[in-house]
Amino acid sequence: MSRIAVIPGDGIGQEVIAEAQKVLAVALPGYESTEYDLGARLYNRTGEVLPDTVLSELDGHDAILLGAIGDPSVPPGVLERGLLLKLRFEFDQYVNLRPSRLYPGAPTPLADVKPGDIDFVVVREGTEGLYTGAGGNLHTGSAAEIATEESLNTRYGTERVIRDAFERAKRRRGHLTLVHKTNVLVHAGGLWKRTFDEVAAEYPDITTEYQHVDAAAMFLVNRPHTFDVIVTDNLFGDILTDIAAAVTGGIGLAATGSINPDHTHPSTFEPVHGSAPDIAGQGIADPVAAISSTALLLEHLGRTDAAIAVNAAVERELGGRDSGTKIRTGEVGDRVAADVAGQLS
Amino acid sequence: MSRIAVIPGDGIGQEVIAEAQKVLAVALPGYESTEYDLGARLYNRTGEVLPDTVLSELDGHDAILLGAIGDPSVPPGVLERGLLLKLRFEFDQYVNLRPSRLYPGAPTPLADVKPGDIDFVVVREGTEGLYTGAGGNLHTGSAAEIATEESLNTRYGTERVIRDAFERAKRRRGHLTLVHKTNVLVHAGGLWKRTFDEVAAEYPDITTEYQHVDAAAMFLVNRPHTFDVIVTDNLFGDILTDIAAAVTGGIGLAATGSINPDHTHPSTFEPVHGSAPDIAGQGIADPVAAISSTALLLEHLGRTDAAIAVNAAVERELGGRDSGTKIRTGEVGDRVAADVAGQLS
Ligand SMILES: CC(C)[C@H](C(=O)O)[C@@H](O)C(=O)O
Ligand SMILES: CC(C)[C@H](C(=O)O)[C@@H](O)C(=O)O
Repeated sequence: MSRIAVIPGDGIGQEVIAEAQKVLAVALPGYESTEYDLGARLYNRTGEVLPDTVLSELDGHDAILLGAIGDPSVPPGVLERGLLLKLRFEFDQYVNLRPSRLYPGAPTPLADVKPGDIDFVVVREGTEGLYTGAGGNLHTGSAAEIATEESLNTRYGTERVIRDAFERAKRRRGHLTLVHKTNVLVHAGGLWKRTFDEVAAEYPDITTEYQHVDAAAMFLVNRPHTFDVIVTDNLFGDILTDIAAAVTGGIGLAATGSINPDHTHPSTFEPVHGSAPDIAGQGIADPVAAISSTALLLEHLGRTDAAIAVNAAVERELGGRDSGTKIRTGEVGDRVAADVAGQLS
Repeated sequence: MSRIAVIPGDGIGQEVIAEAQKVLAVALPGYESTEYDLGARLYNRTGEVLPDTVLSELDGHDAILLGAIGDPSVPPGVLERGLLLKLRFEFDQYVNLRPSRLYPGAPTPLADVKPGDIDFVVVREGTEGLYTGAGGNLHTGSAAEIATEESLNTRYGTERVIRDAFERAKRRRGHLTLVHKTNVLVHAGGLWKRTFDEVAAEYPDITTEYQHVDAAAMFLVNRPHTFDVIVTDNLFGDILTDIAAAVTGGIGLAATGSINPDHTHPSTFEPVHGSAPDIAGQGIADPVAAISSTALLLEHLGRTDAAIAVNAAVERELGGRDSGTKIRTGEVGDRVAADVAGQLS
């Protein structure tokens, strides 16, 4: 029996997660869920973001399904670092996975692309780079202030995420692009490039390519169909995946997994969008991204058939909309759950 | 009499700079130019990229006009760091300026944008951040290898580029967006944000906004018309300006200035595109970006009327093309130079 920790979080997180759970109920029948009330409410009540006891309870689950966190009442960064990034680091979620597909009906800003043209995944490193917090300030607030940020990279950390990306490329169209900035960041870039080339030698059937991050950012806009799998560092991945979301219809439709591929701790699955306090509580939030994140969760738990069914249902849901379609959160969940039930029966 | 150092460089650099000089001849009559043969040829012949004697000769000029450097025969990074970045650091070119305008006739990949919709400039810091080379490798090549990159930021360095950006916003539509990643890069982000807010208090007429770099990358794709001036750090600026180039028709049309606003050393102006060895020598390279870089040069030298004339001529040149138009490098230069001559006579 799969044990899923559910963190609905703030704003529309609550609403979209309810729909994701409708879908999970049919895709992963009998799963056990425990709900954790983390986010702005807990922080505002107690000043705590992720108490140690909750962290170890979460650790007892097979996966975490998260809605969205963030509220104007909380200083920026507190919940992001204290919850999202903390889970990535504590649970060694070193593969930050974000698939990008252009679905029929999705509002891409690009001309001349058709559904199906864009279909790639970004494998972003999740536990190293500029995300470790290393660095500091000196003479803060004075004219003499200096501030540093340190990017920390290990062979261990780069090799494991690069291997994961090669495995994913093998299961897809067999093309892997490394993105870095080796012409400027020679130290970290050197480590990434050498490690990539060494692992590549073990995968003669995978075609590989290297791109500087500035070029890759541009190519995601003017030739996104050329990508299959991209592997990159933590910060570059953060930027590239938002461009990827933009060209496939916006972060409103994107889902992401912060994955520990070794299953030594739970992985987190969530929609990429935020808590959208402006539309919370009205039943008009689109739960499609939250539902898509259950497909990533199912895939991670080895339920590939169920994952495929959820993706197919999402594709039909989006394909059935036109630009005038009004979203009713609950109806979307009902439709997708019924579709998945039909496929799996 | 203006003294311009000209570095045509490699590949199509030679060809497009010849056209830029045709335009400069009419826009800045009687300017003196000295040509420097730097780039792959010099490196392959002597192993040198930028000899100290040449560096100090360049320093005697009012501006540098550069074509493109880079050739497959030179290891990646050598010329970029040894020439482009070296000039930025040695000549304290702390404002890396890249205007983005969607011209009529430019092949944007975006749907639903018209010429004139996109018109913003990115003011990218050019002498700090992750570009200083600080960092290193330990246990290189072993399983225990670590690599670091250090982002170095000073109050001095952030304040001067932020002030420059506020001044530019004042001369434009009065809107300035700071882009950073304050929710993760708390040390450098804190310095940038505090400095920005302090300087903003001196510019009550400028509306300001803050965006995380991932969000900004997305907005450049799905609502580029909302930007006027963007100020950001060195690496973020590198990435964002390539996205900006992509949405306005590609790096083939973009021009950039690495500017020392205090004129204590020369500034460098160049097209953003590379040396394109595949089409070099055929007379088919588009010199428009090189020509646009002369407009930035003229502006920097205080020749605003001439800069406006060059931009207007470039706009007419692009507007007169359709997708079937074959570029003949020399004809483009002739046409634009004649147009500029007509305007200034
Ligand atoms: C909220 C923030 C800390 C986070 C990140 O930078 O990784 C987000 O942008 C993401 O991509 O998951
Ligand atoms: C060539 C490279 C070092 C350079 C940079 O990273 O700044 C280029 O991408 C640019 O934007 O001018």
